[in-house]
Amino acid sequence: MSVPIPAPTLSRDGARVRILDQTALPHHRVTLALDSLDAVAHAIRSMQVRGAPLIGATAACGVALALQTAADDATLEHALTELGATRPTAVNLHWALARMARVLRPLPPTERLAAAEREADAIITEDIATNAAIGQHGLALIAAIAQNRPGPVRVMTHCNAGWLATLGHGTALSPVYAAQAAGIDIEVWVSETRPRNQGLLTAWELRESGVAHRLIADNAAGLLMMRGEVDLVITGADRVAANGDTANKIGTYLKALAAADNGVPFYIAAPVSTIDFACPNGAAIPIEDRDGDEVRVLHGRDAIGATAQLRIAPADTATGNPAFDVTPAARITGIITEHGVMVPHALATLAP
Amino acid sequence: MSVPIPAPTLSRDGARVRILDQTALPHHRVTLALDSLDAVAHAIRSMQVRGAPLIGATAACGVALALQTAADDATLEHALTELGATRPTAVNLHWALARMARVLRPLPPTERLAAAEREADAIITEDIATNAAIGQHGLALIAAIAQNRPGPVRVMTHCNAGWLATLGHGTALSPVYAAQAAGIDIEVWVSETRPRNQGLLTAWELRESGVAHRLIADNAAGLLMMRGEVDLVITGADRVAANGDTANKIGTYLKALAAADNGVPFYIAAPVSTIDFACPNGAAIPIEDRDGDEVRVLHGRDAIGATAQLRIAPADTATGNPAFDVTPAARITGIITEHGVMVPHALATLAP
Repeated sequence: MSVPIPAPTLSRDGARVRILDQTALPHHRVTLALDSLDAVAHAIRSMQVRGAPLIGATAACGVALALQTAADDATLEHALTELGATRPTAVNLHWALARMARVLRPLPPTERLAAAEREADAIITEDIATNAAIGQHGLALIAAIAQNRPGPVRVMTHCNAGWLATLGHGTALSPVYAAQAAGIDIEVWVSETRPRNQGLLTAWELRESGVAHRLIADNAAGLLMMRGEVDLVITGADRVAANGDTANKIGTYLKALAAADNGVPFYIAAPVSTIDFACPNGAAIPIEDRDGDEVRVLHGRDAIGATAQLRIAPADTATGNPAFDVTPAARITGIITEHGVMVPHALATLAP
Repeated sequence: MSVPIPAPTLSRDGARVRILDQTALPHHRVTLALDSLDAVAHAIRSMQVRGAPLIGATAACGVALALQTAADDATLEHALTELGATRPTAVNLHWALARMARVLRPLPPTERLAAAEREADAIITEDIATNAAIGQHGLALIAAIAQNRPGPVRVMTHCNAGWLATLGHGTALSPVYAAQAAGIDIEVWVSETRPRNQGLLTAWELRESGVAHRLIADNAAGLLMMRGEVDLVITGADRVAANGDTANKIGTYLKALAAADNGVPFYIAAPVSTIDFACPNGAAIPIEDRDGDEVRVLHGRDAIGATAQLRIAPADTATGNPAFDVTPAARITGIITEHGVMVPHALATLAP
């Protein structure tokens, strides 16, 4: 049993990849039809498509799209390179491209387009199934809390790792939707997630799905945990190193520290494809630095409902804008994968 | 030697209290003339005046203003009660009002107005001296770091505890200005401080004063400390409990946790008047919950430079908006007071 997903994040037909433009949300629901490799690369880079699993699937579709014009080696390698350079931190992107390369490189050009489309569709189908499995493993954690105390189970999350970030019900939010489907009373603390405010996507997504939630400033996470108002934290991940250190949206590490300081369990929810077995630890994960205007300029909706932006700091204000941080494995209670809830420092046996 | 303060935050003449309207900053520099008790109470409640020491001094001026119309017991008690109810967390407010009450209650009404004006002026003069002493004690900490490594000393702060929040050079930023005056190369990491964005006040204040700084999302604090890009953290305080637990702007606790996790010294800078010796520990400090629209609506400047606001979440979005959090004494390296840098768990001997 599962709750329906209100809007598809990605679909592929022969000539186009259709995406929900996440830079227009939560103010406008806009579907974009991407019809070229460049359009797909731009969509990933500009965060029209975002969320580690969704980025991986979109990149796979982008390879298939590129091969429609020509399927020779040069075109294939160009597509793999261009798409691989769009975002540095999320490893699903590289995982999906490596998987496409492994399948496509040995094939004669005439067979590549069909194979690319099959493989992209397989990645999409598998992500849906992976999300569902993560949801069931996470549901067991939530159900255990629900059995031990009255009132709603209060989950805190960060950024957006729900159905908007994947092909199915999400990673971090998949257990929430599974709990909803199981009739468990559940509430979500939604962190704004400055500077890109992906928490507003989470609030929008939860509203669309009918899940109770409260929006907070990122700064409020520590006090809420200290007050005992959070039962567990679940976030997604952009890359998990072989030792369990985890890169996720900037600010995740602060939540993990507050959880550890207050005895609140802190979980990462991520498919095994997010684990980079070649990356020994968090210090080896490249961290994307993004444009300072993400800090200097705010986006929202004006009095008549139109999308607008406001400058909050002069254009020449120096900034620091790392997009991800690293949570040490020792601060992570468990990693909820499609295979079960893993101990963070013992991931090696999952390596393919 | 000290650097000049670019704009007065508060001044008192016979009939009025003049304040810099901090809700208009950093976009517009507006001076408000407050001519009644109600105007002063409104200015504190609406955060036109903010910063724990400045609130205390403003309240003292408000008492003097109230006594201009009548100086009987009823008027005095009404003023003390009204002003005392404006903000619950900052203790300097209550400290200043208690001081005014102690001086004024025993006097005959005919002597109260002059005494109130003298006492308000004394609080102002003392705050300037206290700020200067905090600056010198903090300067010693910064100078020691500057001697031990090349390059600028990188201070991280939170919220605004500079000259905008006090009568002199500030609390948390006073050591920074003292270092600037001493010719030490210094840089400040300025956290945005959602939801009220007081970090923008800090960025504006530092720009006015010519101090190098970089604006960051609150979420970035942990990664920057993990990377070794922060030499020390200094924040102000709204109330320090007798055991050293410290309430300050929401998000301070997260910075303290990240500092502890990365061996970065974490200091609170606050006058002794911020220590509430009657409050045993952090759990006993009342935490102000503010309106949810602070989370749902952003304030900034539009394309033509006018002040504007943007809604980022629907008006019926549930929120949590605690304005302060509590940092346990064990996470605080030291409390920089006008008497020196104190061990947080040994404050009792400072009690008056």
